Amino acid sequence: MAKKIPTRLYLSEDEIPRFWYNLRADMKAKPDPLLHPGTLKPATAQDLEAVFCKEPVKQELDDSTRLIPIPEALEEFYLSYRPAPLIRAYFLEKALGTPAEIYYKFEGTNTSGSHKLNSAAAQAYYAKEEGLTSVTTETGAGQWGTAMAMAAGYYGLGLTVYMVKVSSEQKPYRKALIETYGAKLIPSPSNTTESGRKILEKDPDTGGSLGCAISEAVEQAVKTDKCRYVLGSVMNHVVLHQSIIGQETKAALDKYGIKPDIIIGCAGGGSNLGGLIAPFMGEKLLGKSNANTRFIAVEPASCPSFTRGRYAYDFGDTARTTPLIRMMTLGNGFIPSANHAGGLRYHGMNPILSKLYKDGLIEARSAVQSEVFDAAVQFMKVEGILPAPESSHAIKAAIDEALECKRTKEKKVIVFGLTGTGYFDLTAYIAYNNKTMTDYIPTDEDLAKGFSSIPDIPQNKD
Amino acid sequence: MAKKIPTRLYLSEDEIPRFWYNLRADMKAKPDPLLHPGTLKPATAQDLEAVFCKEPVKQELDDSTRLIPIPEALEEFYLSYRPAPLIRAYFLEKALGTPAEIYYKFEGTNTSGSHKLNSAAAQAYYAKEEGLTSVTTETGAGQWGTAMAMAAGYYGLGLTVYMVKVSSEQKPYRKALIETYGAKLIPSPSNTTESGRKILEKDPDTGGSLGCAISEAVEQAVKTDKCRYVLGSVMNHVVLHQSIIGQETKAALDKYGIKPDIIIGCAGGGSNLGGLIAPFMGEKLLGKSNANTRFIAVEPASCPSFTRGRYAYDFGDTARTTPLIRMMTLGNGFIPSANHAGGLRYHGMNPILSKLYKDGLIEARSAVQSEVFDAAVQFMKVEGILPAPESSHAIKAAIDEALECKRTKEKKVIVFGLTGTGYFDLTAYIAYNNKTMTDYIPTDEDLAKGFSSIPDIPQNKD
Repeated sequence: MAKKIPTRLYLSEDEIPRFWYNLRADMKAKPDPLLHPGTLKPATAQDLEAVFCKEPVKQELDDSTRLIPIPEALEEFYLSYRPAPLIRAYFLEKALGTPAEIYYKFEGTNTSGSHKLNSAAAQAYYAKEEGLTSVTTETGAGQWGTAMAMAAGYYGLGLTVYMVKVSSEQKPYRKALIETYGAKLIPSPSNTTESGRKILEKDPDTGGSLGCAISEAVEQAVKTDKCRYVLGSVMNHVVLHQSIIGQETKAALDKYGIKPDIIIGCAGGGSNLGGLIAPFMGEKLLGKSNANTRFIAVEPASCPSFTRGRYAYDFGDTARTTPLIRMMTLGNGFIPSANHAGGLRYHGMNPILSKLYKDGLIEARSAVQSEVFDAAVQFMKVEGILPAPESSHAIKAAIDEALECKRTKEKKVIVFGLTGTGYFDLTAYIAYNNKTMTDYIPTDEDLAKGFSSIPDIPQNKD
Repeated sequence: MAKKIPTRLYLSEDEIPRFWYNLRADMKAKPDPLLHPGTLKPATAQDLEAVFCKEPVKQELDDSTRLIPIPEALEEFYLSYRPAPLIRAYFLEKALGTPAEIYYKFEGTNTSGSHKLNSAAAQAYYAKEEGLTSVTTETGAGQWGTAMAMAAGYYGLGLTVYMVKVSSEQKPYRKALIETYGAKLIPSPSNTTESGRKILEKDPDTGGSLGCAISEAVEQAVKTDKCRYVLGSVMNHVVLHQSIIGQETKAALDKYGIKPDIIIGCAGGGSNLGGLIAPFMGEKLLGKSNANTRFIAVEPASCPSFTRGRYAYDFGDTARTTPLIRMMTLGNGFIPSANHAGGLRYHGMNPILSKLYKDGLIEARSAVQSEVFDAAVQFMKVEGILPAPESSHAIKAAIDEALECKRTKEKKVIVFGLTGTGYFDLTAYIAYNNKTMTDYIPTDEDLAKGFSSIPDIPQNKD
């Protein structure tokens, strides 16, 4: 008899991976390098260290080391909330009447409520090790800001969080949580920075945007002594830290001899998706295993960087101060509609994932938020967990795939990332319950406006 | 070398206890029976079944069966969120510099955010099994209402929750969560019941109370076809269901050969405390083990039923409709000050715990809320988890005991119940951060007023 698969697959502490897996090492076609926006030459460690911490910069630029050891002191922090459970969705399978096996990696058991803590802890650790006294960052929906507040609090590091103004007003509990962990929170745009003041002059009533909050946080970091900027997605070193998700998922599946047919992740900047699929994609690229595994990215129809974006060099922020990143992008000037609930509202996408998508190795699809919340509520009623709006994009696709298996009578193994909980997103659920939630799909004109902000450089002519 | 103790002790699924442990079976001096308020004779199953579900009534009256099997279909639901982790507080120990070993049983990993789900699931299961179509209940801080909404939603059972009005206004997210799981929420007092209307006539602007919400829920259950009332604490069958907490804790400690010197639980109606200590107290009573283990109840100074209450027969609700319960009580007319944050605001205490306290087998102490929140914030900054205000009472005592060990250089083992998370209690944390939180200790006159509501019956003359 096959070993009975428990509802919750927990690794024991000695089974937790001690290494991050750097997928780029196994990619023959590597993502393109970051470019210095002035010289248009590949950015050097020195360029990047003006903004970012040293070790993360090293990791950002390293596309050849396969396994990077997780520092022991960081591993200790990870043990305060990891291993995260891999859960067999027996209840959902039954409710759907599907022959498919569904598993989800649940990253929401820590107080910050999402996977973001995996990289927040790493970046806070390295900042402390480097002798910095503080870091700055931005947050939109609030998951990353909370995670950084927890991590900075733990390592005794000062933290200033620029929170998109409309979000800080709609989410007083997120704000309170960030402040309770000891961080300083500034609604963005603010008059504490040049870029904030510029935007406020133009539009004093703006609710702010992620791109603008990034500009403020970077500016503040650069002008402050012993301070650097940290961010929670998009960059390759963040995806590297998040590979702990995929490493744990693979270890748990391997323990029971389970091979995934479909792996699904929601995609905003790509940190969860990139981390979740990394070791599986690695084996596929090496021809070792998972030859037929499909990888599916799910993004909001209101911010469709994979499905309707362009593969181009673009800035990471609105003020156009970051290095140029070659990625799937809607243009740094693109701002998703205000009715969009939750995160996944970044204009670009991690370069590794962008490259894999471009090369046909991952699929992508989009979903409008009302159908995403339909899936979320269907899920929570049987599986119990109230999912974050972000994570619910993956739920939506997992349900669709499971129903397709029902139609075709195939017993596929579907794995998806449940990146976090929606405890601080109940305003969106209230709108859903009251049927006041609306959907928005950008028009081609909206997109054209965003694309016009992509820099007109030779590299973008190819 | 001793086996290294992991940070998180998870039982595997086949190590999860399959039985609830009924402590009364091992008590030589049993708690006194419930009395019918009219005849003052012990309440019969028939009396109780007018209000409660059949199987819980059987459990309520059963003081001789030691182990009661958890029904298989319920065990399946438990597996959706259990086992709950027993966590070694390495970070807190280090921060305190104590030689003590501190462990906490963390019941907050499910979406309802607390241990309440253990009994909610059992009661929803039995109601469904009995052929009922709906149940009613009340909720104060909201943990129990959310747990019942999850459980009722899962078992396809209708649910009406009477939520203390002031709480439903202060906690829109709790309300939204309860409604998203499909339950009907009515702020109490309401005009849907006789008892609600009576109170509104007297005081139209009242914020409500738990005792009043109970009266409304009971009245609604009695007058509705195929409907019964369920409640989340105080009763012996609830403590029975919560023994899963103690059973799991004991199994995890036994696995590593750890014997607790001190077990600490917060106490409102007593469901967590009773469930946590049950198997340890049982061994102590039988002289098997734990001969010197101390059991400590921690309650709010603003609602001190153990430390300043009377051991008497009293009603469970304000409208004086329930059976009479012999317990530590402040009087059914006692209402804690409005500035009290979170739960633990019930006037009485579970009869088993009341009896054990009366017989000197458990200790009790109280704490004012500012010192409770001091402990909560100290805890969250090192252990990561944002605790519920309720649970933080236990944290406060655990820290005090650990510091006492530091003074005496004793390496004691301290175990406490971390009953839940404070994600929906951030309004209280905001007050704490802003230093607008105030403490309240009832005066002797306040208490005398409460005591005057204790019924003047012969049994209370002893």
